[in-house]
Amino acid sequence: MNREWELLQIPGPTPIPPSVNRAMSQPMIGHRGQKCKELLEDLAPRLKPIFGTSGDVLVLSSSGTSVLEAAVVNTTEPGDEVVVVVAGAFGDRFAKICETYELNVHRMDVEFGKAVEVAAIEKQLQDTPNVKAVFVTHCETSTGVMHPVEAVARKVHELSEALVIVDGVSSIGGAPVDMDGSGIDLLVSGSQKAMMLPAGLAFAAVSENAWKVIDSNPRPRFYLDLRSYKKSLDKGQTPFTPALSLLFGLQEVLRLIEEEGLEQVHQRHKIMMEMTRAACRAIDLPLFVDDEDASTTVTSIKPESFKAEDFRKLANKEFGLMTAGGQQHLKGEIFRIGHMGYSRPTTVLQYISILELVLQRLGHNFEPGAGSAAAQKAYIQATREMDKNVSRSY
Amino acid sequence: MNREWELLQIPGPTPIPPSVNRAMSQPMIGHRGQKCKELLEDLAPRLKPIFGTSGDVLVLSSSGTSVLEAAVVNTTEPGDEVVVVVAGAFGDRFAKICETYELNVHRMDVEFGKAVEVAAIEKQLQDTPNVKAVFVTHCETSTGVMHPVEAVARKVHELSEALVIVDGVSSIGGAPVDMDGSGIDLLVSGSQKAMMLPAGLAFAAVSENAWKVIDSNPRPRFYLDLRSYKKSLDKGQTPFTPALSLLFGLQEVLRLIEEEGLEQVHQRHKIMMEMTRAACRAIDLPLFVDDEDASTTVTSIKPESFKAEDFRKLANKEFGLMTAGGQQHLKGEIFRIGHMGYSRPTTVLQYISILELVLQRLGHNFEPGAGSAAAQKAYIQATREMDKNVSRSY
Repeated sequence: MNREWELLQIPGPTPIPPSVNRAMSQPMIGHRGQKCKELLEDLAPRLKPIFGTSGDVLVLSSSGTSVLEAAVVNTTEPGDEVVVVVAGAFGDRFAKICETYELNVHRMDVEFGKAVEVAAIEKQLQDTPNVKAVFVTHCETSTGVMHPVEAVARKVHELSEALVIVDGVSSIGGAPVDMDGSGIDLLVSGSQKAMMLPAGLAFAAVSENAWKVIDSNPRPRFYLDLRSYKKSLDKGQTPFTPALSLLFGLQEVLRLIEEEGLEQVHQRHKIMMEMTRAACRAIDLPLFVDDEDASTTVTSIKPESFKAEDFRKLANKEFGLMTAGGQQHLKGEIFRIGHMGYSRPTTVLQYISILELVLQRLGHNFEPGAGSAAAQKAYIQATREMDKNVSRSY
Repeated sequence: MNREWELLQIPGPTPIPPSVNRAMSQPMIGHRGQKCKELLEDLAPRLKPIFGTSGDVLVLSSSGTSVLEAAVVNTTEPGDEVVVVVAGAFGDRFAKICETYELNVHRMDVEFGKAVEVAAIEKQLQDTPNVKAVFVTHCETSTGVMHPVEAVARKVHELSEALVIVDGVSSIGGAPVDMDGSGIDLLVSGSQKAMMLPAGLAFAAVSENAWKVIDSNPRPRFYLDLRSYKKSLDKGQTPFTPALSLLFGLQEVLRLIEEEGLEQVHQRHKIMMEMTRAACRAIDLPLFVDDEDASTTVTSIKPESFKAEDFRKLANKEFGLMTAGGQQHLKGEIFRIGHMGYSRPTTVLQYISILELVLQRLGHNFEPGAGSAAAQKAYIQATREMDKNVSRSY
């Protein structure tokens, strides 16, 4: 059913590296045996730097949304006051989960395409007494905005006792987060974005501060009870049969990230963003998000001279280039290119050139080759500034 | 880390067929695209016969326990009276989930190693007014007992309005269940047992009767809200990003099952059980479960002349044969051999012969070769009774 040469440049699921596919097909093992224990004990410390923490990183066998829910049910009780930054579909999902679990939800609606301002968080907290938690999305996948979660965390802790809970689903593995340094209390993510795996694993990095709340929280929960995962992790186990093939793959993902170097991985994502944005500017494709708010993992474009869906269809049909459309009221208004995980600057060069070809078919007025040249220039500039001694190979 | 020739004969996780491994490494696809829709629409009707239903079979991306929890949170409200058959670790887990969610749990404790009696269910229902649901495990993996879930369902419906909720995690794909015919309301399972996949998918087959309760149940739930899965399935979607590599694998699993024939698959499991039990009898290895209660997917042995753990260690160390130990108070008392999913009569011949070798090392008093001969005889007898026109190849 698959055309194997296709280019999956949506903001997740993302392509799986061949070595990760090979790792996932290792022979099955028992989940209560020594090999599984060794695997879990190998993974646990290696996940921590990716989440910017020296604390626990728990691994659940389920997809991203489940760990957004885990963040809610483990830290809150019905009637709690919570603040949720809503600047796209995933902020909205956080809010919906909070509403489902009968919290008093204060939605901070931010214009789609803009990042939340720290001053707005400050005002919200001044206006809202007894806030139990502030929920904020790091990379809002639906718009391509990266919210300043570290600055938000510092401000929240300056003003209140609230926990800071961050959705890092489409950023972790592609963008740095200083969880410990900024005081983020709970940082959750999934496997199918910059972590280069199929969907099916979810991650929860938990601060000491968050454990205090979680440990004493009486709300009923079972599969998503983070206390069970912690208790099991301390024994080199999982509370329930884990998605072992994905854990085999995760081990190889960590090897790939360590081989490249985590800082280099983050730098590569930043370079891919800069190349993509420079190219769009050079060929008159309006960027939906300003430079200061732009995500390093996904870029949104709001075309004016043609329809977003016409571009997506043609790029897919003629060249197998898959991009994502807009969600909610942005449907048909924007298209989104994912550049995270198993993507490289050479991938950007390829999709920019495809993009230029498709734009010619659509009659967009621009100078063919200008996008490619701009992406190349951005690459040269970005790497010029890098430490000459750092070995790299793109 | 793996010795690829090892024999994983625990009652799950089970070995992955090579063609399923290859299917799982197909290129990643977008979860909102046409290909994913086609995949989901292909899988949906093909799952139904395996669950013995013409109703919906929903697929969650999480492991077995999550769908036991889904069964509880979707059908009950705090304070509801429920009956849970507890005859091992997994009946106990069902009860614990019910207790977590604040139900009035009536535990029906059954001696470990025995199946629940329908008369006992009858008495329990006569003694307990307003039972909302009866929870029963089909194959109790921890003991190797198969409970008569169809007879239980018929009796419950004869006497009450209660829903009948069945844990089919270690039976579905290996043993037939007539869900529609017997009136089982909710039949849940996981991927890592007879379904020949890694853990990470969970299944919920839902009756019309159960939907009435689920649709009007106000209990908060999100990731495990079966209504979302149903609503999405009707559009050829999933509510959240699914574990796509496992869905690719599931497609191949269904092809394998259909190629062999579902009835043949069930027959193969029964033959493997008969071979294993005949062999144990022939070499004086006490079976923990009587014939009439025995599971077709896992056999428990309670050795008297040697320690269960000594057998397990030596079989693993010298021959790479992995078996499971006992759980809870059966720890050290029994060992369990899984014969489900990607196992065949030839697999049984191999592990029985290994078992005989290890027993000689342990000084067990028996006639070497008698177990193998008995397994061969059981095979010949079982297949003699089969329709000669059915093509088969073991």
